[in-house]
Amino acid sequence: MDDFSSQVVYTNDKLFFKKRKWTIMPYVTIKMLAGRTEEQKRACVEKVTDAIVETTGASRDKVVVFLEDMKKSEYAVGGVLLSDEE
Amino acid sequence: MDDFSSQVVYTNDKLFFKKRKWTIMPYVTIKMLAGRTEEQKRACVEKVTDAIVETTGASRDKVVVFLEDMKKSEYAVGGVLLSDEE
Amino acid sequence: MDDFSSQVVYTNDKLFFKKRKWTIMPYVTIKMLAGRTEEQKRACVEKVTDAIVETTGASRDKVVVFLEDMKKSEYAVGGVLLSDEE
Amino acid sequence: MDDFSSQVVYTNDKLFFKKRKWTIMPYVTIKMLAGRTEEQKRACVEKVTDAIVETTGASRDKVVVFLEDMKKSEYAVGGVLLSDEE
Amino acid sequence: MDDFSSQVVYTNDKLFFKKRKWTIMPYVTIKMLAGRTEEQKRACVEKVTDAIVETTGASRDKVVVFLEDMKKSEYAVGGVLLSDEE
Amino acid sequence: MDDFSSQVVYTNDKLFFKKRKWTIMPYVTIKMLAGRTEEQKRACVEKVTDAIVETTGASRDKVVVFLEDMKKSEYAVGGVLLSDEE
Repeated sequence: MDDFSSQVVYTNDKLFFKKRKWTIMPYVTIKMLAGRTEEQKRACVEKVTDAIVETTGASRDKVVVFLEDMKKSEYAVGGVLLSDEE
Repeated sequence: MDDFSSQVVYTNDKLFFKKRKWTIMPYVTIKMLAGRTEEQKRACVEKVTDAIVETTGASRDKVVVFLEDMKKSEYAVGGVLLSDEE
Repeated sequence: MDDFSSQVVYTNDKLFFKKRKWTIMPYVTIKMLAGRTEEQKRACVEKVTDAIVETTGASRDKVVVFLEDMKKSEYAVGGVLLSDEE
Repeated sequence: MDDFSSQVVYTNDKLFFKKRKWTIMPYVTIKMLAGRTEEQKRACVEKVTDAIVETTGASRDKVVVFLEDMKKSEYAVGGVLLSDEE
Repeated sequence: MDDFSSQVVYTNDKLFFKKRKWTIMPYVTIKMLAGRTEEQKRACVEKVTDAIVETTGASRDKVVVFLEDMKKSEYAVGGVLLSDEE
Repeated sequence: MDDFSSQVVYTNDKLFFKKRKWTIMPYVTIKMLAGRTEEQKRACVEKVTDAIVETTGASRDKVVVFLEDMKKSEYAVGGVLLSDEE
C-alpha cells in the first residue's frame, strides 16, 4: 500500500483515490416512508452527495448512499403505527 | 410553517401530528472516519438537511440526522484495517 | 403536554424544540422473523413505547419505533440459514 | 441440528427453545441521547423485554436488546446539532 | 452442542448462560446487491461463520448472520443510483 | 459513466473496478462484545473478507468491513444487562 499515490486516476475530470481523501469514505443511509418517485430519489442522492462533498472534503466518488423505504405498517410515533393513524 | 399549531391534534389524550408532509420523516445516518471538525459537522448536517428538504418535500423540522464516527481500527477495505495501511 | 405551544420557539426563522424532555428522543428498532399479525405489531409498538416512557422519562410523542421483518432465508444462527433448518 | 427437540427446557413454567418459538428471536435496538443512569437502563431493558414477550410470543431468553448512546454533537433535528441549540 | 446442558445455570430463578465464550456473541450483517443464489447465500453464511469462530473464539452456535439485499435503485456511489448507470 | 471500463486499474496485481463485479459491493458489519485484541480483529476482517470473496464472487477490493464493539452495559439477553450477570 506504500504506492498509494499510483492509484490516482483521472476520469471525467474527477480525481479518484487521493491518499488522504480516500479514507474519509462517507456512508449515508436515508430512511423514509415509501412514496418518493424515482425522480425524487435521483435528485435526493445527487444533492445529498453534493452536500457531503462540499462540507467534508470527501472525494465525490467515495460517497455511498443507501436508500431505505419504510412502510406505514412498520413505523410508529407515540406508540401508534402510521397505518393506524388515518 | 406558520400554521404549525393547526398540525397539533389531541386524540384520546394523545398528541399526534396529522399533516401528510409530517409523515415523510426522513432519518439520515452519516458514517465517516473520525477527524471532521465541529465546524465541518455543523455545515454537513445543515447542507444535507437542505438537500433532503429540497428534493423530498419533507418538512425541515422532521429531518433527523445521526452522525457516526468510525475509527481506523474498526474499518477495513479489501480485508485490511485502515489502521494497518500506513 | 398541555403546554405544548410553549415548547415552540422561533429562532432565525427556524422552528426548534427547546424542552429538555424532548431531546431524549428514543429510536427503537425491533427486528424479528416475519409472521407477526398486524394485531401483534400494534400491541408490540404500544407496549414497548409504554416501557420506554415509563423507564426513561421520554415524552411519549417523541418515541419512534421501527419494525423490521426478517425472512428465514436471510437469517442464520451457527452458520445455517433458518430456511435450511426444517 | 437434527436433535433440536433435545434442547427443549422447562423453567418456571416457560418453554425455552421450542422449535417454532425459537425462531422468533427479536433483536431490539434502543438509541437515545446519553444521560440515562445505569438504573434507568436496567429498568428499560427489563420492561421492554417484558413488552416484547407479552405481545409477540417470543421466548424471554431469546430477546436481545442493544442500547446505543447518542452524543448531542452527533445528532441534529431540522439541520441543527443539538449541541448548538442551547 | 453436546455439552449444552452444562452451560445452563439457574440464578435468581432465571436461566442464564454463564460460559465466557457465550458472551462474545457476534452479530454479522452482510449487505449486498440482490442477485446471489440461495446456494451462494448458504455458502456465504457458513464460511463467514467459520471465519468468525476461528478468529474470535466465539462459540459457533452464538454466531448470528443477517443478510440484507440492496436494490440497484436504492444504492448510489458518487451521487448516481446504480439503476441509472447502465 | 459510459466509459466505465476505462476505470479498470491494475495495482499490486489486483483488479479494481471491473464493471459487473464492481456492483456486488458487500458491506459487512461485525458487532461483538469489546475485548478482542488488535491481532484478533486483524485476522477476523481478513478471514471474513476471504469468505465473502470466495462465496459471492465479489472483488476483494470492494469488500468493506465495519467492526463495532459492544459494552456489557449496553447489551441485554432475556431482559438482563450482561454487566449485571456476574
